[in-house]
Amino acid sequence: MKLITSGDNARLKQLAKLIQSRRARQAAQQAVLEGVHLPQAFADAAYRIEALYLPQHKLADAEVTALLNRLPETPVYVVADAALGKISSLTQADDIMALIALPPPPRLPESGDCVVLERVQDPGNVGTILRSAAAAGVAQVLLSADCADVWSPKVLRAGMGAHAQLQIFSDVDLPAWCGQYRPPLYATALSADSRSLYALDLRPEAAWLLGNEGSGVSAAMQAAADVRVQIPMAANTESLNVAMAATVCLFEQQRQRMA
Amino acid sequence: MKLITSGDNARLKQLAKLIQSRRARQAAQQAVLEGVHLPQAFADAAYRIEALYLPQHKLADAEVTALLNRLPETPVYVVADAALGKISSLTQADDIMALIALPPPPRLPESGDCVVLERVQDPGNVGTILRSAAAAGVAQVLLSADCADVWSPKVLRAGMGAHAQLQIFSDVDLPAWCGQYRPPLYATALSADSRSLYALDLRPEAAWLLGNEGSGVSAAMQAAADVRVQIPMAANTESLNVAMAATVCLFEQQRQRMA
Repeated sequence: MKLITSGDNARLKQLAKLIQSRRARQAAQQAVLEGVHLPQAFADAAYRIEALYLPQHKLADAEVTALLNRLPETPVYVVADAALGKISSLTQADDIMALIALPPPPRLPESGDCVVLERVQDPGNVGTILRSAAAAGVAQVLLSADCADVWSPKVLRAGMGAHAQLQIFSDVDLPAWCGQYRPPLYATALSADSRSLYALDLRPEAAWLLGNEGSGVSAAMQAAADVRVQIPMAANTESLNVAMAATVCLFEQQRQRMA
Repeated sequence: MKLITSGDNARLKQLAKLIQSRRARQAAQQAVLEGVHLPQAFADAAYRIEALYLPQHKLADAEVTALLNRLPETPVYVVADAALGKISSLTQADDIMALIALPPPPRLPESGDCVVLERVQDPGNVGTILRSAAAAGVAQVLLSADCADVWSPKVLRAGMGAHAQLQIFSDVDLPAWCGQYRPPLYATALSADSRSLYALDLRPEAAWLLGNEGSGVSAAMQAAADVRVQIPMAANTESLNVAMAATVCLFEQQRQRMA
């Protein structure tokens, strides 16, 4: 356990960069987990926690103590309250923070269930979709380069630990990837040839493509998909939030497989 | 069209109160819609827009002009940029605002499909659930007194106009209401006697009870429900976000009715 007393501490400055900047996370291949719940979820999934940063006034917290006991090998940096200003304005939670190494990028999937996000820009939506994917038993999530950064603190928070249970592929060139993926690719879209979600046999492996909050799945990716799919809705309703649409599709798939 | 030049203008001060305070909304039985989309959705649903407040620099906006043309009888107050500080810090959107009268509270339902929220506290969750209810064809939403205020700007924004299509009952004494509601009441809960969502016949009318983000449906309301229901999930996943859980249940109901 080491004490950090200055806001100019190099580790603290690097932590601040990792919280704020996608570029910093990509350069270091690290991300920051806020709160006690996320490090627990990542440790459960056999992620290595590289370091813990702890506001001094949290030292007596029972949940924090339990986490420290669970990770006896992990370096712990206690941040003196005077130095905390460097980072506390960047985070919503004045709480423990854990540094993790991002898993090395695996090869893009050629099969297996996937969720594929194209330009989904709200961090809460991305995190919620990850959580639904994990709960519906889908293990692979692909994101185009212009999605909200999947390793940002906001997406991690909304994911509630789902990241640790998933294989995550970010900055994916989706049109190129389509060519190598063999199972059907379903695009959620209101197009003239869209089929009802409930008319599909969803027991075989598949990928679900979800698009931008405002504009939906791009025309190019709609065309690249094998089937365009719509969720039947009540009259006078325009659309569902993208995270809701993802959840309805993924749980319909799960329902059919359990039947 | 009238120009408001001072932040001390009485109308502007009242508007600020209605944006900020649940108590002010309840006392006046009014709420404030932000942006051009919400007033359109409420006007489509035959709500009367009582007044429009418009930042001066938005006067040339094409969407704003279209909205003003559509509502020729509605008083319009143009807020000079100098006076805008009074309200712009309270809202996320530096945008047009519309004042609506809340519909008079109808009698609590004794039948008909319902969504029932007990202590759901995140405004985004409440708004998203309203949107899913409308999309799944459920017309009645009841909220206990300790939910996020359904007429707050954040809930209205997340609802994307769904409020206008629903009958909304807030501050409901749920234990008392249970006694008068005749169709089955389903509580989403992980209890020992919970049944799988997919084992239920959801074609008849029903009410869906969803609980607090952290603690779920209270023990008292679980006991008051006719059936406790769980959504089957993949191993190692604890729970779904309450808005996701609501969406899965409501669209399973919709699917069964369409079949």
